[in-house]
Amino acid sequence: MNSSRVHFGFPAFGLGGRPRANGYIAALGSPAVTDDAASLFCPLEFRYGRESVRALFSRGSRLARVLSVEAALAAAESELGMVPRDAAETIASVANLDHVSVGRVDELERSLRHDVMAMSRALAEAAGPAGRWVHFGATSADITDTALALELKEAVGILRDDLTDLIRALASLARRHRATAEIGRTHGQHGVPISFGYKIAVAAAEVLRHRRRMDELLPRLAVGKMAGAVGTGAGFGPHAAAVEAGVMRRLGISADEAPTQIVGRDRIAEFTNLLALIAGTAERLATEVRNLQRTEIAEVAEPFDEAHQVGSSTMAQKRNPMLSENVTSLARLVRAFALPPLENMVQWHERDLANSANERIVLPHAILLTDDLLGKLVEVYRGLTVDSARMAAEIDRSGGAAMAESLLLALTSRGLARAEAHERLRTLTRGGAGSLAERARTDPTIQAHLSPEEVVALLDPATYVRAAAEKTDRILAAIDPELRR
Amino acid sequence: MNSSRVHFGFPAFGLGGRPRANGYIAALGSPAVTDDAASLFCPLEFRYGRESVRALFSRGSRLARVLSVEAALAAAESELGMVPRDAAETIASVANLDHVSVGRVDELERSLRHDVMAMSRALAEAAGPAGRWVHFGATSADITDTALALELKEAVGILRDDLTDLIRALASLARRHRATAEIGRTHGQHGVPISFGYKIAVAAAEVLRHRRRMDELLPRLAVGKMAGAVGTGAGFGPHAAAVEAGVMRRLGISADEAPTQIVGRDRIAEFTNLLALIAGTAERLATEVRNLQRTEIAEVAEPFDEAHQVGSSTMAQKRNPMLSENVTSLARLVRAFALPPLENMVQWHERDLANSANERIVLPHAILLTDDLLGKLVEVYRGLTVDSARMAAEIDRSGGAAMAESLLLALTSRGLARAEAHERLRTLTRGGAGSLAERARTDPTIQAHLSPEEVVALLDPATYVRAAAEKTDRILAAIDPELRR
Amino acid sequence: MNSSRVHFGFPAFGLGGRPRANGYIAALGSPAVTDDAASLFCPLEFRYGRESVRALFSRGSRLARVLSVEAALAAAESELGMVPRDAAETIASVANLDHVSVGRVDELERSLRHDVMAMSRALAEAAGPAGRWVHFGATSADITDTALALELKEAVGILRDDLTDLIRALASLARRHRATAEIGRTHGQHGVPISFGYKIAVAAAEVLRHRRRMDELLPRLAVGKMAGAVGTGAGFGPHAAAVEAGVMRRLGISADEAPTQIVGRDRIAEFTNLLALIAGTAERLATEVRNLQRTEIAEVAEPFDEAHQVGSSTMAQKRNPMLSENVTSLARLVRAFALPPLENMVQWHERDLANSANERIVLPHAILLTDDLLGKLVEVYRGLTVDSARMAAEIDRSGGAAMAESLLLALTSRGLARAEAHERLRTLTRGGAGSLAERARTDPTIQAHLSPEEVVALLDPATYVRAAAEKTDRILAAIDPELRR
Amino acid sequence: MNSSRVHFGFPAFGLGGRPRANGYIAALGSPAVTDDAASLFCPLEFRYGRESVRALFSRGSRLARVLSVEAALAAAESELGMVPRDAAETIASVANLDHVSVGRVDELERSLRHDVMAMSRALAEAAGPAGRWVHFGATSADITDTALALELKEAVGILRDDLTDLIRALASLARRHRATAEIGRTHGQHGVPISFGYKIAVAAAEVLRHRRRMDELLPRLAVGKMAGAVGTGAGFGPHAAAVEAGVMRRLGISADEAPTQIVGRDRIAEFTNLLALIAGTAERLATEVRNLQRTEIAEVAEPFDEAHQVGSSTMAQKRNPMLSENVTSLARLVRAFALPPLENMVQWHERDLANSANERIVLPHAILLTDDLLGKLVEVYRGLTVDSARMAAEIDRSGGAAMAESLLLALTSRGLARAEAHERLRTLTRGGAGSLAERARTDPTIQAHLSPEEVVALLDPATYVRAAAEKTDRILAAIDPELRR
Repeated sequence: MNSSRVHFGFPAFGLGGRPRANGYIAALGSPAVTDDAASLFCPLEFRYGRESVRALFSRGSRLARVLSVEAALAAAESELGMVPRDAAETIASVANLDHVSVGRVDELERSLRHDVMAMSRALAEAAGPAGRWVHFGATSADITDTALALELKEAVGILRDDLTDLIRALASLARRHRATAEIGRTHGQHGVPISFGYKIAVAAAEVLRHRRRMDELLPRLAVGKMAGAVGTGAGFGPHAAAVEAGVMRRLGISADEAPTQIVGRDRIAEFTNLLALIAGTAERLATEVRNLQRTEIAEVAEPFDEAHQVGSSTMAQKRNPMLSENVTSLARLVRAFALPPLENMVQWHERDLANSANERIVLPHAILLTDDLLGKLVEVYRGLTVDSARMAAEIDRSGGAAMAESLLLALTSRGLARAEAHERLRTLTRGGAGSLAERARTDPTIQAHLSPEEVVALLDPATYVRAAAEKTDRILAAIDPELRR
Repeated sequence: MNSSRVHFGFPAFGLGGRPRANGYIAALGSPAVTDDAASLFCPLEFRYGRESVRALFSRGSRLARVLSVEAALAAAESELGMVPRDAAETIASVANLDHVSVGRVDELERSLRHDVMAMSRALAEAAGPAGRWVHFGATSADITDTALALELKEAVGILRDDLTDLIRALASLARRHRATAEIGRTHGQHGVPISFGYKIAVAAAEVLRHRRRMDELLPRLAVGKMAGAVGTGAGFGPHAAAVEAGVMRRLGISADEAPTQIVGRDRIAEFTNLLALIAGTAERLATEVRNLQRTEIAEVAEPFDEAHQVGSSTMAQKRNPMLSENVTSLARLVRAFALPPLENMVQWHERDLANSANERIVLPHAILLTDDLLGKLVEVYRGLTVDSARMAAEIDRSGGAAMAESLLLALTSRGLARAEAHERLRTLTRGGAGSLAERARTDPTIQAHLSPEEVVALLDPATYVRAAAEKTDRILAAIDPELRR
Repeated sequence: MNSSRVHFGFPAFGLGGRPRANGYIAALGSPAVTDDAASLFCPLEFRYGRESVRALFSRGSRLARVLSVEAALAAAESELGMVPRDAAETIASVANLDHVSVGRVDELERSLRHDVMAMSRALAEAAGPAGRWVHFGATSADITDTALALELKEAVGILRDDLTDLIRALASLARRHRATAEIGRTHGQHGVPISFGYKIAVAAAEVLRHRRRMDELLPRLAVGKMAGAVGTGAGFGPHAAAVEAGVMRRLGISADEAPTQIVGRDRIAEFTNLLALIAGTAERLATEVRNLQRTEIAEVAEPFDEAHQVGSSTMAQKRNPMLSENVTSLARLVRAFALPPLENMVQWHERDLANSANERIVLPHAILLTDDLLGKLVEVYRGLTVDSARMAAEIDRSGGAAMAESLLLALTSRGLARAEAHERLRTLTRGGAGSLAERARTDPTIQAHLSPEEVVALLDPATYVRAAAEKTDRILAAIDPELRR
Repeated sequence: MNSSRVHFGFPAFGLGGRPRANGYIAALGSPAVTDDAASLFCPLEFRYGRESVRALFSRGSRLARVLSVEAALAAAESELGMVPRDAAETIASVANLDHVSVGRVDELERSLRHDVMAMSRALAEAAGPAGRWVHFGATSADITDTALALELKEAVGILRDDLTDLIRALASLARRHRATAEIGRTHGQHGVPISFGYKIAVAAAEVLRHRRRMDELLPRLAVGKMAGAVGTGAGFGPHAAAVEAGVMRRLGISADEAPTQIVGRDRIAEFTNLLALIAGTAERLATEVRNLQRTEIAEVAEPFDEAHQVGSSTMAQKRNPMLSENVTSLARLVRAFALPPLENMVQWHERDLANSANERIVLPHAILLTDDLLGKLVEVYRGLTVDSARMAAEIDRSGGAAMAESLLLALTSRGLARAEAHERLRTLTRGGAGSLAERARTDPTIQAHLSPEEVVALLDPATYVRAAAEKTDRILAAIDPELRR
C-alpha cells in the first residue's frame, strides 16, 4: 500500500489550497507507479478523483475528525463542570492520530464489533486515567453524525470552489466569444444564429444557480447533534442544551434542533440530490463538447496532448473527446448515488441502522466524483479550441435558411397573415434553385410586402449575433458581482 | 365522463379555496358513479388525487393558461407599439375557453401535428382580423414554458399549503402529547424513553424544512421566457427585453435570465427532487404509523370508519393502516418521477425535444400524488388514535432495562471506568431473576457506587420524559412564528 | 368522453387483431375531437398510446377480468363439490359487465372502502340466491393477483408482437442496405467504414434478445394464486390444491408454487426491469436517428408529412426528428417506472399493501408506453429515408483517413513494429498537403514496406464494406428462423 | 468453491479457497490491522466484502485477465497462419504478471493516456522481437470487452454459489420448522396462522427463481468479441470469423454475434438488473428478521456473540439486528447501481465511451456487495435463533380472533349470506368480554348455524398449521432436485 497517500492529521482535511497539480489530461491514467497498487480494488483509489479530496475521506482523516468531536465534547462538558478540566485537556491532547491509530481502533473493533465503542476505548487508553471521561453521556451517533457534519461542511467548501472555478472558466470563454457567430441548433437541426459566447453564458448562469443552491443548503447540512440515545438530550442531564451548544460552537457548525438518535436524513438526501443536479449540468456541458467536436461539425475540440496522446489503438488519426465522455460516464453514477439517501430517510422510529453502511460508501464516492467532474470540465472549457471560421462557414452553408424566421416576422408585420407567411416560407425553404435569398427576392408574395434590399437585410445574420452578444454581456454583468461575494 | 370535473376557465386554476371535502377515508374508492368511468385508464382520473388539483392540470386548464400567455404577449407588444392596441384587446377578449375550445385545437393539431401552432391558429381564428398579431415574434416554447411556469407556481402554492396543514396537524398532536411517555426505539429495539409528542415534534420540524426549501426554490422555478427561437430575443427586435419584461409583469412571474430555446431544465429537476424529498418524509411518517399500529405494539391507530369500513374480505377482525400503506406506496412513485427530469437536463445545443413528452406526464402526476400524500397524512395525523396507557405499559414491561443508560452514566461519573460499567450493565440486563432495578440494587459493583435510592431514582423514566417534553416545547416554540409568516 | 373507447366486456381484452390504424405520425396530437376531453388529466388518456392497449387496462376491462376469476373459482369449487353446480353456473352467467357495472361497484366501494369486497358484493347481488357462493374461501388478493396475471399475460403477448414487428422492420431495412457504405463513428468521430445495413442488423439482434428474455420470463410472470389469506390454502380446506389447480387451468395460467397472501413481487419487478431494458434499446435506436438526421450529417430522415406537418412555429424550414425525440422522452419514463416494483419486493411478513397503489399506476402506464415506443420505432424505421449518396460522400470527404487502420495492420505484418507504425500514421493523419493516400505513397517509411499500388488498395473502403455486408447476411440468417418460431 | 476459478498467475487473486473465515459477525469491522490502511478511501477495500471477491477484481487480476486475452489472440492467429507460431508461444509465456507489471503499464499510460495501448506496449516489450505480433488486428475494445466477459463469467459463478448456499440454508430452516405454528401477519396485523417453516420456504422458492434467472442470463452475458474497430471484423481480413472463434474457444466463452466496437450493453444492464432484483429479495429477508426481532415480537434473533459483542455504546442491554440492517443498507446501493448500465445502453453510433468509466466502478462494487449481502444472509439464517414458544404464545394471545376466517367460511357454507357473516364477525371481533370463542359460542346468529363444538374446532389453529406444513413439504420437495442439478 502506497504510504505516500497518507496526508491527514487534523490539518490535513482542512487543506484550503487546491493543488490540482498537473491537470486532468495528465492525470487520466496516471496512478502511482508501484506494484502495491496491484491489490487495489476501487478505481477511486487510483484512477478517478483528486488526491486532496481522497485524503479528506481517508480512514485516517475520518478517525481524526471523530476524535476531534470527542475532544470538543470533553471540553464543553468541562466548561460546565461535568468533567474535570485537566481530564478534558488530556483528552484534547491525545485526540489525534499520533496517539490513536487506525490500527489500534481496528484491533479493538475486532472484538467489540462496534466502531465507535472501539474508537472511544482506544482514546480512553491513550488518555490514561482521564480516559473514563471520554464520550461521557454521549451516544455513538452523537459523535459520528457530528463528525459527518464537519466532513460535509468541508466537502461543500470544496465543491463550491469547484463551481466557482467553472463559472469563471465559462464566463471568460463567453466574454471572449460574445460575438462569435454560430448557428443555433434545436432538435439537432439548424435554427437561427446565436453567438458561441451566448451558449457559454447560458451554461455559466446554470452553474451559478447550483452555487446558490449550495449556499442555501449548507446551513441545513452542517448540523451535528449531541443529544443522546433518542435525541432528547436526557442522558446529559440538566446541562444537555449547553453541552450541545458548547460542542457545536467549538466545531463551527450548528445543532439539529430536533434530532432522533441521528440527525434528520432529509439533510443528506437534499445534498446528494444537489450533486445529482450538478451531475446533470456536467453531463450537459460534456455532451455539448462531444457534439460540437463531431467530425462533421468540428467547431470545438477539447484539449489534447498532440505530442503524445493516443486516440485509438487502431485508428491513429482519431482525436476523441475523452474527458467529456469520461465526465458523461461519471455523471450518471453521481446521479445514481442520489437514490439510497432518499430511501434512507425512511427511518424506523428513533432510528434504524439502514442508512449507515450505504452512506459510508455513497457520500465519499459521490463527493469525490462530483469534484472530479467539475475539475475536468474546468480543464475542458479552459483549454477548449474554438474554430470560429468553421462556425461562420456553417451559417453560410445554410444559404440564408437559418434566417427564415426573420423574414416570417417581417412579412407578418407588413400585413401578411401569419399562417400564410409560414406556409410560403415552408415551401421556399424546402428547396429550389439558388439560395433562399435569391428565391425570396423573386417570390411574388414576398415581393408584394418587402423590397429586395429589405430581404437581403433580413437574411443577414449579423442582427441575430448582435442581439446574442448584448444578452451575453447582460448575463455576464450579473454574474461578476455575485462571484465576488 | 363526469362533466362536474370541468371547473377551469381562467379563474378555475386560481381556485384558492381548498375543499378537501369529506376527507380521504371517504374518498378512498369513491369515484364518480357513472359507467362512462368504465373507459378510463389512468387511476389518477378517478382513484387518487383531489378534484381541485386534477382540474388545475386538466387539458382545459392547460389550454386556458397557454391562451392567457398569448394574451399577455399581445398586450405587452401593444404597449411597445409593436402590435395595434385594439388587436391586443381583441386577442385578450377571446383568449379563453369560451372562444377557443380544446376540440377545435385538437382538430387543427390533427393536420398540423404541432400543438402550439394549432392553438395559435385557433386563437387567430377566434380573433378575426386581429388574428395576424397572435403569437407575434414568439417561438412555441416561449408560450409553453411560460405557461408551465404559471402552472408550477400554482402547484407550489398548493403544496406549500399542504405542508403548512401537515405541520399544523403535527404540531398540535405534539403539543397534546408533549409529556406522554413512550419507549424510544432504535434498531427496532427498545431504547430509552421519550415522549410521544417529541417524536411528532421531530416530524413537524422535518416538514418545516421542506416548506423552507419550497420557498427558496420558488423564485428559480416560476420563471418563463419570451426570448424567441434560441433564447437571445433576436426575433423580437430592439424591444426584446421590454417585451419579455412586459409579459412576465402581467403574469406575475419573472424571466429566465439566460434561456436557450427553453427555460433551463435544472429548475424543473430541482422541483421534482424536492417532491422526492417530501415523499421520503411522507413514507417515513406513514411507516411510523404502520409500525406503531402493529398488533403487538398497538400504540396508535389511524382513523377508521368503525361503522362501515372493511379491513379484510376474509379476516373480519382486521383493522389495517390502509391510508398509511397507501401513502407508502404512492411515495415510491413520486420518488421515481424525479428521475426523468434529471436526464432531461442534458439538452442538446439550444434544446432538443426529449424533455417534452415525459414532462407532460411526470409533472401533473408527481404534483397530484404529492398533494394526495400530504392530504392523507394530514388526515391520518389529525385523526390518530393514541393509546397512552399502552405506551406506559410498554415502558413498564421492560422492568427498567430501558433506563440502563442512566445507570451507566451515573456509575461513570462516580468513578467507575466506562468500559467496566458498560460490561457490568450488559451482563445485568441480559437477564436474571427480578427486574433490573432489583438486580442492580443488589449488585456489589453497583452498590459500591450508588445507594439503593439512587438506583431507583435513576431507573425512573420520568426524568427522560421531562427532558423530552421540554425539548418538544422548544421545537414547537420555534415553529409557530415561522408558520405565521 | 369519447364513448368509442369503451370496447371491453370479456372479449374486449382479447382483441387479437392490432389495428395500429393510421400510424403514429397521424396520431401524434390526434385526440378525439370532443370538448369532454377538456376535463381529462392524464396524457395517456388522449395523447400517448394505442387505443387497443388503453382498452386492455380500462376500468371496465379490469373489472371484467376480476369477474372472470370469480367465475373460474366458483366453477372449480363446484367441480370439487364445494359449491352447488347451478350456483356456479349462475355466477358464471352474470360475471360480466352486462350484469355488474363499474358504477355499481363504485357505489358499494364508497361505503365499504374495499374494492374487492365491493366487487364481490355487486356480483353476489347479480347472482341472486347463488350469490352466497361468490368468492367462497378466497381472499381478495387471490382474485386480484390472478386477474393481474391474466392482464400481464395479455400485455406480454402484445409487447412480444411489437418486438417482432420491430425486428422485421429492422431486418428488412438491413437487408436492403447490406452493402450501403457508411462511415463508422466511434466517440462521435469518423472511424472505419461499415455498411448501413450492418448498423441496423446489430439493432435487430439486440431487439431479438429482448424477445428471448420476454419468452423466458413469461412462465414466471403469468402466475396467479388461489391460496387464501396467507398463501397456505388453509381456508379452502382439504381441496385447497385442487381448487387452485382448477382455477388456473380454466384461466390458462399457472399458480405461484409458494405465495404469501400475494404472488411474489420479484415476478413483477423482473418484468418492469425488462421494460426498462427495452426502453434502453428504444432510446438508443431513436438517438441514432436523431444523430444521423442532424443538419450536418443528414444521412437519414424519419418519415415526415411534407404536405402538412409543421416543424417549427417560427422556423418554417425545419424538419425535426419528432417521433424519435418523443421515443427518447418516453423511454426515460419507462425506465423510471422500474423503480417502485423493486422497492415493492420488500413486503413485510405475509404481505403489506405498499405495492398496491403504485402498481395500479405503474403497470398500465409502463406497458402502454412501451407499446407506444415500439410502435413508433416501427414507423420510424419502416419509413426511414436513407440517403446513400450522402453516406458515400462522407467517406470520401475523409480522404482515406478512415482507412488508416488498414495501413497500420499491413505495415505491422510487413515487419514494422506496431508502435512505430502507429506513430507514423498518427503523424501522417494529423495533416499535411494532399489526401492521406498521397502522403502515404510518398512517405519513406511506408514506401519501405508497401508499394504505391498496395497503399491505394489498402485505402479502398470496399473491403471493409464487403466484410460488413457479409456479416450482415450472417446475422440476418440467424434471425429469420427464430422469428418464424 | 470451485477451484477452477483460478486461471492466472499472481497468487493474490487466485485465492481459491473461500475463507469466509470466522463469518461475518466476526468480520464486521475486522479490517487488516495496519496503519497503511489509514490512507484507504473506499470502504470496499477494508470494511465490506470478501477478500476472495475483492481479489477477483483487483488491478492485478484485471491486468492478468487482459493479458490472457492477448495471449489467446496470438494463439488463435498463429493457428491460422497470421502470426508466427513461436511468436505466439513467446507472447503466451510472458502474458502474465510475472513479466508485465501493473507498475510498468501505469508508467506507459502516463505518457500514452490510453490504457490498452499501454498494456499492449508493456506486453510487446516483454515479448521482445515477438512483440510486434501483440494485439495484431485487434481494437482495444476487443481485448477489454472479452476480458470483461471472463470477469463476469467468474462473478456469475460466485453469485450462483451464493444463491445456492442461501437456498440450502433456508430450505434446512424451513424443514426444521415445517410445523412450528406462527401467526401470519398482513398489513402489520395478525392474520391467520402459518408455520414458520412455510414463511421460510416461500423465501427459498424466491431465491431459487433468481438462480434460474442467473442461469438463463449467463449465455447472453459471457460473450466477448474479436471483431475490430466497428464490429465487422474487417481489420482481421478474410480470417476474421475464425480468429474470433479461436479466441473464444480458448477462453471458454462465446462471441457477440452482432457487436459494434463493443459488445451490446443490454447484456450488462440485464445483469445489473438481476443484481437489483436479488437485492430486493435480500432486503426483504433482512427486513423480516428486523421485524421479527423487534422487542415486542422477539420471535427470532440473528446470531450475536453474547460474550463480546456490543449492541449500543450507551444502552448496554441492546441486541440489535446489525447484520440484517447492514444487508438492508447495502441492498439499496446495489439497486442504485442498476441505473448507470441502463443509461449506458444508449451508445452513439458504433460506440461512445460514456459507459466505460462508470462500468469500471459499478460492476466490481455491485458484484462485491451482492456477494456480501448473500453471504451475510446465509450467516443470519443459518444461525437464526427461533423462539417457537413465543410464536405459540402470540397465537394464543389473539384469543381466537386469528381464526375468524375459518368461522366465516363455515357460516357461509352453512347458508348464511357472506356479507351477513362478515358483518357479524366484524362486530364480534371488535371486542366484548371473553375470548372470541366464548363470544361466538353464545352469539345467536352463530348458534343458529354451528354447534359449540364446531365453533371450538373451527377456532383451533392446528388445521391451519397442518396445511402450512404440508405445503412447506411440497415446496421443499420441488427445490431439492433442482439444487442438485
